Amino acid sequence: MLDQSDLIDLQKSNSVDHFLMIRKLELRNTKAGKDYLSLELGDKSGSLSANVWSDTKGFDKISNKGDVGMVVKVLGTIEEYQGNSQLKIKSIRLTEIKDGVNPQDFLPKSIRNPDEMEEELLSRIKMISDDYLRELLTNVFKDDRLEKFKKAPAGKSWHHANIHGLIEHTLEMIRICDLMCDIHFELNRDLLITGTMLHDFGKTEELSYDSAFEYSDKGKLIGHIVICASMIEAEAKQIPGFPEELKNLVIHLVLSHQGKLEYASPVIPKTLEAIALYQADELSAKVNAYKSTLKSEKSIRGNWTKFIHLAQTDLYKHEEPDELNEETKESLFD
Amino acid sequence: MLDQSDLIDLQKSNSVDHFLMIRKLELRNTKAGKDYLSLELGDKSGSLSANVWSDTKGFDKISNKGDVGMVVKVLGTIEEYQGNSQLKIKSIRLTEIKDGVNPQDFLPKSIRNPDEMEEELLSRIKMISDDYLRELLTNVFKDDRLEKFKKAPAGKSWHHANIHGLIEHTLEMIRICDLMCDIHFELNRDLLITGTMLHDFGKTEELSYDSAFEYSDKGKLIGHIVICASMIEAEAKQIPGFPEELKNLVIHLVLSHQGKLEYASPVIPKTLEAIALYQADELSAKVNAYKSTLKSEKSIRGNWTKFIHLAQTDLYKHEEPDELNEETKESLFD
Amino acid sequence: MLDQSDLIDLQKSNSVDHFLMIRKLELRNTKAGKDYLSLELGDKSGSLSANVWSDTKGFDKISNKGDVGMVVKVLGTIEEYQGNSQLKIKSIRLTEIKDGVNPQDFLPKSIRNPDEMEEELLSRIKMISDDYLRELLTNVFKDDRLEKFKKAPAGKSWHHANIHGLIEHTLEMIRICDLMCDIHFELNRDLLITGTMLHDFGKTEELSYDSAFEYSDKGKLIGHIVICASMIEAEAKQIPGFPEELKNLVIHLVLSHQGKLEYASPVIPKTLEAIALYQADELSAKVNAYKSTLKSEKSIRGNWTKFIHLAQTDLYKHEEPDELNEETKESLFD
Amino acid sequence: MLDQSDLIDLQKSNSVDHFLMIRKLELRNTKAGKDYLSLELGDKSGSLSANVWSDTKGFDKISNKGDVGMVVKVLGTIEEYQGNSQLKIKSIRLTEIKDGVNPQDFLPKSIRNPDEMEEELLSRIKMISDDYLRELLTNVFKDDRLEKFKKAPAGKSWHHANIHGLIEHTLEMIRICDLMCDIHFELNRDLLITGTMLHDFGKTEELSYDSAFEYSDKGKLIGHIVICASMIEAEAKQIPGFPEELKNLVIHLVLSHQGKLEYASPVIPKTLEAIALYQADELSAKVNAYKSTLKSEKSIRGNWTKFIHLAQTDLYKHEEPDELNEETKESLFD
Amino acid sequence: MLDQSDLIDLQKSNSVDHFLMIRKLELRNTKAGKDYLSLELGDKSGSLSANVWSDTKGFDKISNKGDVGMVVKVLGTIEEYQGNSQLKIKSIRLTEIKDGVNPQDFLPKSIRNPDEMEEELLSRIKMISDDYLRELLTNVFKDDRLEKFKKAPAGKSWHHANIHGLIEHTLEMIRICDLMCDIHFELNRDLLITGTMLHDFGKTEELSYDSAFEYSDKGKLIGHIVICASMIEAEAKQIPGFPEELKNLVIHLVLSHQGKLEYASPVIPKTLEAIALYQADELSAKVNAYKSTLKSEKSIRGNWTKFIHLAQTDLYKHEEPDELNEETKESLFD
Amino acid sequence: MLDQSDLIDLQKSNSVDHFLMIRKLELRNTKAGKDYLSLELGDKSGSLSANVWSDTKGFDKISNKGDVGMVVKVLGTIEEYQGNSQLKIKSIRLTEIKDGVNPQDFLPKSIRNPDEMEEELLSRIKMISDDYLRELLTNVFKDDRLEKFKKAPAGKSWHHANIHGLIEHTLEMIRICDLMCDIHFELNRDLLITGTMLHDFGKTEELSYDSAFEYSDKGKLIGHIVICASMIEAEAKQIPGFPEELKNLVIHLVLSHQGKLEYASPVIPKTLEAIALYQADELSAKVNAYKSTLKSEKSIRGNWTKFIHLAQTDLYKHEEPDELNEETKESLFD
Repeated sequence: MLDQSDLIDLQKSNSVDHFLMIRKLELRNTKAGKDYLSLELGDKSGSLSANVWSDTKGFDKISNKGDVGMVVKVLGTIEEYQGNSQLKIKSIRLTEIKDGVNPQDFLPKSIRNPDEMEEELLSRIKMISDDYLRELLTNVFKDDRLEKFKKAPAGKSWHHANIHGLIEHTLEMIRICDLMCDIHFELNRDLLITGTMLHDFGKTEELSYDSAFEYSDKGKLIGHIVICASMIEAEAKQIPGFPEELKNLVIHLVLSHQGKLEYASPVIPKTLEAIALYQADELSAKVNAYKSTLKSEKSIRGNWTKFIHLAQTDLYKHEEPDELNEETKESLFD
Repeated sequence: MLDQSDLIDLQKSNSVDHFLMIRKLELRNTKAGKDYLSLELGDKSGSLSANVWSDTKGFDKISNKGDVGMVVKVLGTIEEYQGNSQLKIKSIRLTEIKDGVNPQDFLPKSIRNPDEMEEELLSRIKMISDDYLRELLTNVFKDDRLEKFKKAPAGKSWHHANIHGLIEHTLEMIRICDLMCDIHFELNRDLLITGTMLHDFGKTEELSYDSAFEYSDKGKLIGHIVICASMIEAEAKQIPGFPEELKNLVIHLVLSHQGKLEYASPVIPKTLEAIALYQADELSAKVNAYKSTLKSEKSIRGNWTKFIHLAQTDLYKHEEPDELNEETKESLFD
Repeated sequence: MLDQSDLIDLQKSNSVDHFLMIRKLELRNTKAGKDYLSLELGDKSGSLSANVWSDTKGFDKISNKGDVGMVVKVLGTIEEYQGNSQLKIKSIRLTEIKDGVNPQDFLPKSIRNPDEMEEELLSRIKMISDDYLRELLTNVFKDDRLEKFKKAPAGKSWHHANIHGLIEHTLEMIRICDLMCDIHFELNRDLLITGTMLHDFGKTEELSYDSAFEYSDKGKLIGHIVICASMIEAEAKQIPGFPEELKNLVIHLVLSHQGKLEYASPVIPKTLEAIALYQADELSAKVNAYKSTLKSEKSIRGNWTKFIHLAQTDLYKHEEPDELNEETKESLFD
Repeated sequence: MLDQSDLIDLQKSNSVDHFLMIRKLELRNTKAGKDYLSLELGDKSGSLSANVWSDTKGFDKISNKGDVGMVVKVLGTIEEYQGNSQLKIKSIRLTEIKDGVNPQDFLPKSIRNPDEMEEELLSRIKMISDDYLRELLTNVFKDDRLEKFKKAPAGKSWHHANIHGLIEHTLEMIRICDLMCDIHFELNRDLLITGTMLHDFGKTEELSYDSAFEYSDKGKLIGHIVICASMIEAEAKQIPGFPEELKNLVIHLVLSHQGKLEYASPVIPKTLEAIALYQADELSAKVNAYKSTLKSEKSIRGNWTKFIHLAQTDLYKHEEPDELNEETKESLFD
Repeated sequence: MLDQSDLIDLQKSNSVDHFLMIRKLELRNTKAGKDYLSLELGDKSGSLSANVWSDTKGFDKISNKGDVGMVVKVLGTIEEYQGNSQLKIKSIRLTEIKDGVNPQDFLPKSIRNPDEMEEELLSRIKMISDDYLRELLTNVFKDDRLEKFKKAPAGKSWHHANIHGLIEHTLEMIRICDLMCDIHFELNRDLLITGTMLHDFGKTEELSYDSAFEYSDKGKLIGHIVICASMIEAEAKQIPGFPEELKNLVIHLVLSHQGKLEYASPVIPKTLEAIALYQADELSAKVNAYKSTLKSEKSIRGNWTKFIHLAQTDLYKHEEPDELNEETKESLFD
Repeated sequence: MLDQSDLIDLQKSNSVDHFLMIRKLELRNTKAGKDYLSLELGDKSGSLSANVWSDTKGFDKISNKGDVGMVVKVLGTIEEYQGNSQLKIKSIRLTEIKDGVNPQDFLPKSIRNPDEMEEELLSRIKMISDDYLRELLTNVFKDDRLEKFKKAPAGKSWHHANIHGLIEHTLEMIRICDLMCDIHFELNRDLLITGTMLHDFGKTEELSYDSAFEYSDKGKLIGHIVICASMIEAEAKQIPGFPEELKNLVIHLVLSHQGKLEYASPVIPKTLEAIALYQADELSAKVNAYKSTLKSEKSIRGNWTKFIHLAQTDLYKHEEPDELNEETKESLFD
């Protein structure tokens, strides 16, 4: 890993001597006609904008050969422009092999260890009692597809928008859904857990996440929900005797998991498992989204963040849980 | 075909000596505890409700063996109850083989000839220039699937809710879309016509239409849009070299053809063909729905029908086009 | 307890010799001018409608002295009218002291033991680390208020609409919220659990639940949310040094727990705990509502219930979890 | 016509020696206090923004005498500023009579010939069978009103926003509506075509379109729908014996043609012709709007335009119809 | 006037010997096939439903010659059916000339004297300073049009749904708007009062109110808003020199007075007078609607009415203002 | 008071030698790295933005010690930047005691005299007949709370957003509500006027208004509606014998005064007084909001303001009422 401080921790006037990934790159010129590069540069903790003027050292190389997803080495300082931090760049260069940097180290990542998460997922699959469902899951979560699932983010920007975010979000939901099955024996645990594991699987194809997080063409034309439904349809056909009703119930869980037509689910929840899956997804997604928003947004006035569009409000940051409370951080019941 | 007058043409006090199909059947009793059968009986022109009392001739047979979809022979008269016509039944019996009736003759039907429509569809498929699309369509519209497509209604009750309604609606839309391609060369005609042919194909599985028109379990859990998307995904895989982008564009047409998320499309139209398909569907569906509503609804006050929920208004029936206008019924431009 | 079968288990033609509670009572007459009583009679498992004619034994007493909430003794049979079961009554009388029936036995009840639930609640209060919050909760949940909280339903008809439903719903949410705190240390556990315990407390005054479940005048004019907010405001004043910010955060949790203005929350969630509380409430409420709907609604066609207004769909009842699955009913992780 | 290249075809660094129309003109100064003119200059193909500094040749004349709608002669080059093209101006001057330019040549125009379109319209009017309707149309579409109708755009910016756009849009809708009458004899062709011709007629007064396309005061206070309704009311009074019901039906078509109250129609469609007119309008308007958006918007990422507000999505530009497809561009059925 | 008690004051078991107007009339028969007339009969205070059996005295005459709007003489008693009062009829006959009854006496009426209201209106017109507006109003409010305006209700059922209701509502709004002009000198009083007088004038043609209150065909196809706008357009043309801007502003007031597109205003308020007119209309209409609902609806449970659809709630009837308060009924400031 | 012209009256090029209040203050630097202060400076008539460069006289003092709410002395001129006026500053300094300026003089103020308004309010309270309500109001409107009520604005920016705006708005509503009581004796005048006086009282705590108008933390977490409801609950407890129903009715008026759930009222109006209060509030608020918008917004094109978000339209400024009309400015009926 890199031996440099995180961007998010740098203050005004700090000097910068960092490797950073190019997130956006545009060649522009001023009203007065002078060329410059408008960049967004980032590491795993966040990103900043920066302008590189035509007389800055390294300008020519970057404007000719630089591209989104490449890592550059930058010298400069942190400044403030219109209330936001930005990078003032003294020199910039493309990295070479001998720098030994890995682009993957520059994307935001889940705090959980991916291999541990993979193991948690696979051992949960083994606990599925229903043979058809266990075989379906075993076939889906292997090889390339498992690798993609382990790496993909759960979203472009709102919740779990980081590498490994999809598997992290899925595991959190499994814990919630298992608790709901503990409380309500009427829920078919195998069916609900299967739906939980598959519900966002289509995001492995809906999004691209090698350098920045973007929607793929297929993702925008078809969407992760239908991508996944077609995959289940095809996989179930490979398993001899897979019951038609069971297949339809699993696909129904995937199709209805966004809960409402206006949230792009083509059918709304019509089974007990479907309503549980939708509400568990909401609980996990919203708490994670608010948490990461509170982390990344500076308080503007007093304890308040700026207006957050997806929450339709500004958010209030109260004190961290105090010492007394910290003792209770461990689960009370495990 | 049957040699009997249509239900819709019968007036109060007319006597009835008809074969009719059972659309609904329920055994009830009155507050006073007397048994009776509550029936809905119909032919291809419409249906009426009728009560069969326990002392009516034939009551026992029907209550023991009668079921939805069977055809019965009925003697009785037309009466009026709370402003609606109903059947007063003197005797009722199940049909036998020697009656020679065919249940299919008792379902509402398109006025167009189904074989002519099939030929029109198949010859239009042959005019598709793109080899991949033409092969896709040829594979879809054959054998059992073609038979189903030819027979299915386009909806449960609102528009084209009759046998052969799906192919009739599809052909009307093809004419509209071909006209739009005549006017706007920017539209990719092959792509648009392919999408038009497939857009409601999933209704062959979403609905059941052997006796009454109902949604199937699969139809309610998955819906005709995703049923069709998965079929295209599978069919395209069978055609060597079928371009990925082309496949996604065809699926996009099917997925977005209801135009808005709240109308159960999981993606909204994002191509020129997609917006044309959605709006052509609206034009065909709405005109047909209003037309059949005006035909089946009696005027209540003056020229007005009752309040029509799906139109969110009552409708005004003005005079039929007069003689002069009838001369213009033929197309002015053909 | 009563030694009689549950209403919900009775079939057509079964005879009835039951104590039942009057849920509705209206004196009507037929078009022909004959008097009768239109009743709804129920036990803890459900209720049925029944007509008592003026010549039925006991008619006079009931029409003069009967009232909602009283228990009557009824002889009769189960019949079917327009597809629904109803009671055909041969004789009816008011209960006397010597019958030894307790009206409370005729209301639907939580399946959990109320004393166990009380103990679970009180011991969870003791685990609150923050002294102010623990004192606040201790003062609220005692004496009369605790008795009311233990008895009240969580709703009039949709979810947890039974005696002890409020405490049962609250404890389920505490389990969900504790799990969320296990996963996300950023949540202030004391604050979130305090808000969870109080969020629906105002329902003890919003609803009346001695005989049937109804809204009180105060409940309709003010609502449980503001009733509870004013109570917290008053209680916090009694605790010396209760921090203003902490009080506002607790009230905010109560005010915002329905999540959206259109759901009658006067403010929307603006803290991490507030969004967690809202979503945990949704998860618990929806799963319980769908579960009890599936239990009480007969399947009408195939596996489908009738259209459920609050779910905006009909619901699908699939098979009970099979034997294999039942082994997994115990929590996998406890 | 002008002998100069179209603005839309110019690339970065191309030099400009063009007559252009002033679309917007504002005198501003920089933070540093220097004066400049902020202009939007355009021809029939599009428009660009440009700043003219106080030391640029021609600055004084333009800032004193220039105004929106005037044509200027400009020397300069195409540059890029923040991702958009703009004009860098070296000198600018007002045109003189000897330049021989006609302001009308600088507005976007329909690709169809206006005189042909006028003839198509007038000959279609002659085919109206109903004497009252034909006389009404003949009286409306003549002299000044015909000239305005021939020139006006159909909208400010969304669809058919060009000179002659209104008549072009109307003729497209007539073709669609005539096709619908061919298919559905229940439609009163005379009534529907009359409504089609008049539906947007009020736009001749709602918009001003001599230099830029703007709403007039009357247009904003009253709107094209009511402007047209009052005109029909007045014109029908001039025709002896014009039937009251027929007049109301024509006005109803105009009032309801936007289909929904929230789209500013004061009544919704209540006749078969009204629903056909509304849906045909939607079909023509949406296809034209998406078509011109795809034409004018550069693809930003891959095949996608920027987010288009009125479509509520970004749009996908796939390949032009290929050669094979082009053979099918001619109507298959004419 | 009639010397008989009001229908609304009659209790169960009271005998009836009344002249009443036929509001609805339908010939039906029972399931058992017996004919009867289903009637709604009313006086100015309200109306009741009644069945007349074929063996009731007078049945034949009424079923042959009776019609909506006629007055009949009825003998019978008040009974209760399913919680609602109804008339049990012993004999019924059509009225004759010698009965001396006037159908107008059987419609609900404003409590204010119509001639006083006319005078109040006309004298307020004379106070209009602007010559054009005063002349416009003088021309509109005279002869037949004045008579209609004086008689018409302001609505079909929701507010001021009684004879003279339109002028009463208009005068109430004039008082409110004059008060607003007293407070805010920026309001153009002449313009606002003119708009107030005309805003609902189209209701004189939108509704029919000779026997029952119904929408006319023209009312449903065009609506009172556009009916009035066209009338102003025509009337202003008759006044030489009437300023175009002033005419547009008056029409804008009429068009926008329902405030929102979804309430059927084709434009929303864009002037200070327009927003004042809309809000004053809301204030007058809502207070009157709730007042008359509270008057006509019996309390069902405690102090609550049934659910009122247009208010989207049930309403609470508290005590009448007490004696002390009554002293303040006179205006404090006049 | 200050002897200087109002900001709103200054034109381009006017020189400025004014005391002004700092409304916003931010230290920024340019792309080129030069420091400057971005300020908003205002007096009671409005505010302008201004940049202070690091080489401007006074820059250091202001950037070190200046803060929002302080008054500064400024020398400079009015300039225009991108169509908006701004201040070009030559020198700036903080005020000293000897300048004798009072920050309160720099906030926008109601045009009515606050002491007169206080007297009007208090004498209206004395006219309340009901002893409980009069005592409640007397206790609320005294000492500190009266001072705050007298000073507070009624809103942050939309209507009555000025010092003393809350009492001014309240008195306007009292006049409207008293008029409604004059017209409709069914309204309980005491109850309605009490609700009117209290409806926005919570804004004294919801907003802060010492320098700029902002929401307080408590205001954002709880809102003025619930703040006030809790206060009434507490105050009513202090008055022996205060009737429970009366208290609930007053609180209901406060809770429901925003009329709809989506406007943050936790209950909707359920009494006659509640609907009157809501609609009177709408009338007063909207007229004041449009009036002040028309006053502060420059006409951009012709008579039209820019698009006003809260009105969802641009607004039309017609001529001031002419001389003739001015004679009618006095109330016609007082």
